[in-house]
Amino acid sequence: MVYHWFRDGGVDLGRLITEAEVGVFAIAVTPFDTGGQLLVGDIETLVEFYVAAGVSGLTILGMMGEADKLLPEESLLVAERFLAAVSGRVPVVVGVSSPNPRSMGRLAGLVMDKGAAGVMIAPGGNLKHDAAVSDYVRTACEVVGERTPVVLQDFPQATGVQMPVTVLNSLVRDLPQIVMLKHEDVPGLAKLSRIRATVAEAGRRISILTGNGGLFLPQEMGRGADGAMTGFGYPEMLVGVVRLAREGRMDAAEDLFDAYLPLVRYEQQPVMGLAVRKEILFRRGVLSSASLRRPGYVLTREDRTDLDTMMNRLQRRLTSV
Amino acid sequence: MVYHWFRDGGVDLGRLITEAEVGVFAIAVTPFDTGGQLLVGDIETLVEFYVAAGVSGLTILGMMGEADKLLPEESLLVAERFLAAVSGRVPVVVGVSSPNPRSMGRLAGLVMDKGAAGVMIAPGGNLKHDAAVSDYVRTACEVVGERTPVVLQDFPQATGVQMPVTVLNSLVRDLPQIVMLKHEDVPGLAKLSRIRATVAEAGRRISILTGNGGLFLPQEMGRGADGAMTGFGYPEMLVGVVRLAREGRMDAAEDLFDAYLPLVRYEQQPVMGLAVRKEILFRRGVLSSASLRRPGYVLTREDRTDLDTMMNRLQRRLTSV
Amino acid sequence: MVYHWFRDGGVDLGRLITEAEVGVFAIAVTPFDTGGQLLVGDIETLVEFYVAAGVSGLTILGMMGEADKLLPEESLLVAERFLAAVSGRVPVVVGVSSPNPRSMGRLAGLVMDKGAAGVMIAPGGNLKHDAAVSDYVRTACEVVGERTPVVLQDFPQATGVQMPVTVLNSLVRDLPQIVMLKHEDVPGLAKLSRIRATVAEAGRRISILTGNGGLFLPQEMGRGADGAMTGFGYPEMLVGVVRLAREGRMDAAEDLFDAYLPLVRYEQQPVMGLAVRKEILFRRGVLSSASLRRPGYVLTREDRTDLDTMMNRLQRRLTSV
Amino acid sequence: MVYHWFRDGGVDLGRLITEAEVGVFAIAVTPFDTGGQLLVGDIETLVEFYVAAGVSGLTILGMMGEADKLLPEESLLVAERFLAAVSGRVPVVVGVSSPNPRSMGRLAGLVMDKGAAGVMIAPGGNLKHDAAVSDYVRTACEVVGERTPVVLQDFPQATGVQMPVTVLNSLVRDLPQIVMLKHEDVPGLAKLSRIRATVAEAGRRISILTGNGGLFLPQEMGRGADGAMTGFGYPEMLVGVVRLAREGRMDAAEDLFDAYLPLVRYEQQPVMGLAVRKEILFRRGVLSSASLRRPGYVLTREDRTDLDTMMNRLQRRLTSV
Repeated sequence: MVYHWFRDGGVDLGRLITEAEVGVFAIAVTPFDTGGQLLVGDIETLVEFYVAAGVSGLTILGMMGEADKLLPEESLLVAERFLAAVSGRVPVVVGVSSPNPRSMGRLAGLVMDKGAAGVMIAPGGNLKHDAAVSDYVRTACEVVGERTPVVLQDFPQATGVQMPVTVLNSLVRDLPQIVMLKHEDVPGLAKLSRIRATVAEAGRRISILTGNGGLFLPQEMGRGADGAMTGFGYPEMLVGVVRLAREGRMDAAEDLFDAYLPLVRYEQQPVMGLAVRKEILFRRGVLSSASLRRPGYVLTREDRTDLDTMMNRLQRRLTSV
Repeated sequence: MVYHWFRDGGVDLGRLITEAEVGVFAIAVTPFDTGGQLLVGDIETLVEFYVAAGVSGLTILGMMGEADKLLPEESLLVAERFLAAVSGRVPVVVGVSSPNPRSMGRLAGLVMDKGAAGVMIAPGGNLKHDAAVSDYVRTACEVVGERTPVVLQDFPQATGVQMPVTVLNSLVRDLPQIVMLKHEDVPGLAKLSRIRATVAEAGRRISILTGNGGLFLPQEMGRGADGAMTGFGYPEMLVGVVRLAREGRMDAAEDLFDAYLPLVRYEQQPVMGLAVRKEILFRRGVLSSASLRRPGYVLTREDRTDLDTMMNRLQRRLTSV
Repeated sequence: MVYHWFRDGGVDLGRLITEAEVGVFAIAVTPFDTGGQLLVGDIETLVEFYVAAGVSGLTILGMMGEADKLLPEESLLVAERFLAAVSGRVPVVVGVSSPNPRSMGRLAGLVMDKGAAGVMIAPGGNLKHDAAVSDYVRTACEVVGERTPVVLQDFPQATGVQMPVTVLNSLVRDLPQIVMLKHEDVPGLAKLSRIRATVAEAGRRISILTGNGGLFLPQEMGRGADGAMTGFGYPEMLVGVVRLAREGRMDAAEDLFDAYLPLVRYEQQPVMGLAVRKEILFRRGVLSSASLRRPGYVLTREDRTDLDTMMNRLQRRLTSV
Repeated sequence: MVYHWFRDGGVDLGRLITEAEVGVFAIAVTPFDTGGQLLVGDIETLVEFYVAAGVSGLTILGMMGEADKLLPEESLLVAERFLAAVSGRVPVVVGVSSPNPRSMGRLAGLVMDKGAAGVMIAPGGNLKHDAAVSDYVRTACEVVGERTPVVLQDFPQATGVQMPVTVLNSLVRDLPQIVMLKHEDVPGLAKLSRIRATVAEAGRRISILTGNGGLFLPQEMGRGADGAMTGFGYPEMLVGVVRLAREGRMDAAEDLFDAYLPLVRYEQQPVMGLAVRKEILFRRGVLSSASLRRPGYVLTREDRTDLDTMMNRLQRRLTSV
């Protein structure tokens, strides 16, 4: 049975995260074979891997899910397979950002009907002043339907669009359907602190999960993040760091984090990062192919040697502790 | 006596780096008091600190030297003081990038006369195709004078300008005065490998020092970098990593690097990174003020707490090894 | 009967333009009602209007055809209706540019099957060096199929992508399927002259139709353009100017052009231009609604007053001649 | 005697324009010889030409004054020569925009001391949200001194910075030293109407002079502009159009404007426009050299032929009326 997380009296995604033991949503990759065809067969393994890692939820069809290279029916197929494999165990958020509002609205409607817990939207389109950003988000929320929970993604490095805290707060105040912020502005720590310090302006405390591959996760937890919504080849680290931080064991959280940091940093490189992530998942037996659909970065021999070294060093460090 | 590194039969900066024990140029900060006035008195301390850290050279008036906030006579004053304090012990490269070619040419002439070993130039101005980038660099080289050694800075994240390897190679081939590449494209590892693999196209092997705060330094050494030209609050780490890597002790190099990586990553944040660097140098007693000239980031209370934690953790880790 | 212009022994689009009496392709608008629904019923009227104006061809689903706001099945429907209404009287080029190569390939295949004469592609995606632009176009040509005639659109103001003449020439030389250039770089006159002066590098003379609403049409004809591929509320002016210019009657061409120039300039404004064009077509009885699909500019009362004045002045000028 | 326009009880620049017979400030070119050296000798002729054309004021060291290619002492020299030649007959505004606030402040101080009527500032630096733009302008106003009258330039095509009407109004309300808006956003007509419609928010009516080479001057006068602050090879047209429009003779204004529109449009091309303007001024005997300082566009043979044709056609049209 597919659980409808929000509609029809479902669970509130925002509260869910705030109250969950850990608040980690894995940004799921989309598996392709070497010819660029969807490997829907890998989706079940992938889901079991993420769930076993202890994540509180999944986000699919995000930027790191190569959503912009899928045909509409492929997006729907991927969503269906993920939702079926998850089978209501954790909420699934679906990225629906698109330059075309109609495409956004249609995909949102379809995946909510299939049991998604909400949709994720990042304002795009070279917006350069506050009202333009606000209008974009308001229209997008209208387009996906006011009963659809929305995760708002603040990712200026990828989108070019800035969302000042004043704009965020007024959107949160006016649009109850915004249930979560995916925070990945850089530098973003001061912004995170400011959002937490200005809750009164927003009228309510919103869940904040942070991105950027977890590169600043311990510090972000210290600033009031509820967890992370991001991808990384070792999601169990994200889960562990968030759990330890929530228990107030910050030093242990940082110890765990630091062991993985060389790889976090390596995987966080633009353009090539996703190829690294898929390669790690492939080496760990989670994916049957590490390929990206074209156009996408292809790892070189030297990249693979880097990975050999760093994965070996991680292994040694983990066993030595 | 001020040593003229290149002119009049001086030392070849490129060869110097290739043959040096370590190849680390520190990107020096420019000290200001809380009111934004130059603290020329700090320059001597700063120079001794960098030299004691074992750097092979200094780069002044770079982007992280707040060069774009100095008046022309201030730039000259800063250069004079640095050159005087260094007093020929290591070569000093001076950043002269400017949207105004005449300003670039004038500053280059003045600092070369004062004993600089070369100038650093990053192509700017929203250039969007190969010929425009080539023309920019050719003109800049002409403007600073063909006898002036040039460090070419490849830093697309800051400048918006891409320099493909084919363009770089043809510039190196045609312009003997280009003695070094400051490599900080991201992702940049594959590019670094490609430059080394296509030396035949350039006709000569050029020194490559990498930037980005050292974030990928061990991997860059593995790809054929000669060292680093970058800033970091603990330049002794950069020196240590490059020395160990040059000795083939890669594992030791990575051990050393990993201890500092949490801080490297924190200092490498855009906008706020320089404030972090200056704060570390201030806490270490190298600067008498951590201030940036306006407009510049001001650390928050939470930022300082982050730094407390990370600097403590570093101390513990270094003493535990 | 639908005429297949290129496939199966069809007409060569490039030669067709060069040899045609006039070389004007109208960039067709896409009609919507005030609620944003497609007005397919208007397509027939629109086609008759363009054909009566004397155009040599039509381009549909371009940027000014609001293609980025259509769902995939709407794009196909619009293409089918235009192709049916044209019924082989003139060739129809279909814009297929998309950030998603699979969407581009699919739409190209579908419309070529329905009788399109070719597809139009503008390289997009923030490309910043020559090889990236070349790769984009080569991949796009492969994706639409090597037997599909391609109109290459050079429109940096909208796409941010620069195509230097050297890149254009090598693409034309290597990819026989590129049959035409839609030239709308600004400033573009010198570029146009250079393309014509370097035909030897390209190995063949390519048809060039110019854009930008015709703002520089007389000068472009003087530089060797074959005509225009652009939108304007009075396409008969474009046809007239191209015809007169081809007959060598440049002074008469400019007289005709100048009468319309105030409106050309007004309609050529970014963001609002398409709303002006549709309003003119509505006032002329060609569209039953002047609406754009959201998000789109809505004319203000003052805009309408401007239009009243300029259309009246045009009427007076045309009758006074 | 040099008249101090604002300081020490001088004339209010804003009121001056509103009450003047015509409100045209010519954006003056800076004369260079073919080797790129300043031709200060031409400045007197240039000033007499502009004054004879009937302008209400001059703006020097703007973007079209090649200010970004001058050394600081050259900027000052140019300003001194213009101020001396004008000798208080009309107010002179000096462009002081600079990425370096200290440079901006210094130049402002120097030219105000020499008798400038005010300075012009365009916010720059890739600002992407309202508060960043506001902060920039507030800081700039502080930097040039609160007694210095400021012309605020709104020119997003060149600066990349958007200034929404709400931001403009709050700046005008809070900063009495802002005496004028140089309006050249595109599309800008609706914005102009909105500024006029929201005077209550700003608390006072500000003078608005429009730019963009006068391309929309008649429509802008209809929307409430006070005149134009722009360059064009025939400033007497700008003066004539503004005078006629202020007299309510809109049809005559448009007749005059339309005669020049082909050249306005040609001169308004980015990159090459200034070379066209200088060539026209050279042909008219106002400049002894049409050269731009490098890097700058050089007219081709074909460009000159275009100009021949258009200038001849203008001559014919003016004599036929």
